[in-house]
Amino acid sequence: VSAHDELRQLLQRYARAADERDVDGLRTLFHPEAEIDGVRGLLPLDAWLETMRGPQAFPVSMHLMGEPLIVLDPAAGDRPPRASLDTYAVVFQVGDRDAGQGDMTIGMRYRDEAVLHDGGWVFQRRTTTTLWMH
Amino acid sequence: VSAHDELRQLLQRYARAADERDVDGLRTLFHPEAEIDGVRGLLPLDAWLETMRGPQAFPVSMHLMGEPLIVLDPAAGDRPPRASLDTYAVVFQVGDRDAGQGDMTIGMRYRDEAVLHDGGWVFQRRTTTTLWMH
Amino acid sequence: VSAHDELRQLLQRYARAADERDVDGLRTLFHPEAEIDGVRGLLPLDAWLETMRGPQAFPVSMHLMGEPLIVLDPAAGDRPPRASLDTYAVVFQVGDRDAGQGDMTIGMRYRDEAVLHDGGWVFQRRTTTTLWMH
Repeated sequence: VSAHDELRQLLQRYARAADERDVDGLRTLFHPEAEIDGVRGLLPLDAWLETMRGPQAFPVSMHLMGEPLIVLDPAAGDRPPRASLDTYAVVFQVGDRDAGQGDMTIGMRYRDEAVLHDGGWVFQRRTTTTLWMH
Repeated sequence: VSAHDELRQLLQRYARAADERDVDGLRTLFHPEAEIDGVRGLLPLDAWLETMRGPQAFPVSMHLMGEPLIVLDPAAGDRPPRASLDTYAVVFQVGDRDAGQGDMTIGMRYRDEAVLHDGGWVFQRRTTTTLWMH
Repeated sequence: VSAHDELRQLLQRYARAADERDVDGLRTLFHPEAEIDGVRGLLPLDAWLETMRGPQAFPVSMHLMGEPLIVLDPAAGDRPPRASLDTYAVVFQVGDRDAGQGDMTIGMRYRDEAVLHDGGWVFQRRTTTTLWMH
């Protein structure tokens, strides 16, 4: 499997784990020292994972990830291979219809730095931007 | 062309054939003994294809398939290679504006088992789930 | 990097350059003699690029490109390798909320002929079709 395909699969595993509220699964996709810069500001991995626990605002979500724009940076000396990914996504947040809750749709841009760590690609730094909301 | 790319192309050929109401084209994408488990329950291929014939509820559709989460299972002994695909899609059903028909947008999840058969990848079992509708 | 992946990256570079209103960046993605057949009719590259300059109707856009259906045509004799791409996209045009401008979402189909030129893949002919608008 090529590095490009492994990186695409990393994004898809992120989408599934986020939609399944699988916090332990999410943890495996990040470097232990990863940082996530999003709507709550810059957070280290553990603090960011805590924000994913517990009841979320919407009971169901679907993260539709676009194709990433990938730039590979091969290994050099002791430094492992790295990659930057720039990915558009549409996040469908589905409300609880029985409770009269509406839906929300969000246009996102994920900019990730990934690194090959212990034999697998993981996110080392993620910056998320909200482009629009409906 | 890698197995990953052949599997992506299988999904894209599905999207185009579905949107073009090309029932003969759809048939070529499935194993002859395929089963499809969807909104009409579990159907063998021929019965499912019959549901795709004739006038559909909406005159135009666009199947936007997300990137599949692919797990490859290499050939072993006499058994051909297999793959599982987990794919989010947004299906845009476009109404007949002249007749005052509105549009419908559907969030879908396709879970497919594919197999290499007669030299090409085909779907052997598909399970579809509707996640949301607008 | 495979031809399939280079062609996907070409589409992603198009999406980013279009969203950043980067006309010089767009130019590098096309063959110098490319033609674009879209909402303004058939235009040579330079005339089409002029339509991308200056203020656009919406201040922000996001081009979410689906996976392309790719057909590769290998090099033959003096002729370089070619590829056809058939890509669904959803273009989110985001209005200026402060000015009370609403959003527009457009379902597009891009049909491209690409060619390997000076060592990189570029679009040689593009035909765009609008499938729906919200």
